[in-house]
Amino acid sequence: MPIDNLLGYGAAFLTTVSFVPQAWLTFRTRDVSGISLSMYCAFTLGIALWLLYGLALGAWPIVVANAITLMLALGILVMKLRFRN
Amino acid sequence: MPIDNLLGYGAAFLTTVSFVPQAWLTFRTRDVSGISLSMYCAFTLGIALWLLYGLALGAWPIVVANAITLMLALGILVMKLRFRN
Repeated sequence: MPIDNLLGYGAAFLTTVSFVPQAWLTFRTRDVSGISLSMYCAFTLGIALWLLYGLALGAWPIVVANAITLMLALGILVMKLRFRN
Repeated sequence: MPIDNLLGYGAAFLTTVSFVPQAWLTFRTRDVSGISLSMYCAFTLGIALWLLYGLALGAWPIVVANAITLMLALGILVMKLRFRN
C-alpha cells in the first residue's frame, strides 16, 4: 500500500476511535462540567457535513469513518445536555 | 461553487473551530476531570497523521485545517496533563 494511503487510514482510524474512551468516560462518570457544549454542537454538525460530503462524492471511507464519529459525538453531546445539572 | 465543495469547506471549518471553545473552557476553568486523556492522545496523534497525509498529497486545505486542529488538540492534551492533579 502506498505511504499516503497508510497515513490516511491510520489518521482516519485514530481520529474516529479516539471518541470511544471519551464517550465511555462520560457515560461512566457523568462528569461533563469540563466538556464544552459549544465544541460538541459545532463538532457534531461538522461531522454531519463530512458525512454528507462523503455521500455526495460516493467516498465510502469518508462515509463510514464519519458515520461512526457522528454516533459517538452525538452521544457525548446528548450526555452533556442530560448530565449538566 | 459546487455543493460538495461547500459541504467540505463547511465541514472542515466546523470540525476545526469546534476545538476553540473547548481549549478556552479548559484554559479558563482548569476543569479536566471529565476530559479523556486516551481520547486526546489518540486524537492528537491522528490529527498529526492527517497533517502528514495532506503534506504527502500536497493538499493544502487538509494541511491548513489539520495544522490548526493539531495546535488546539495538543494544547488541550498538555492542559489535561498539567491540570489533572
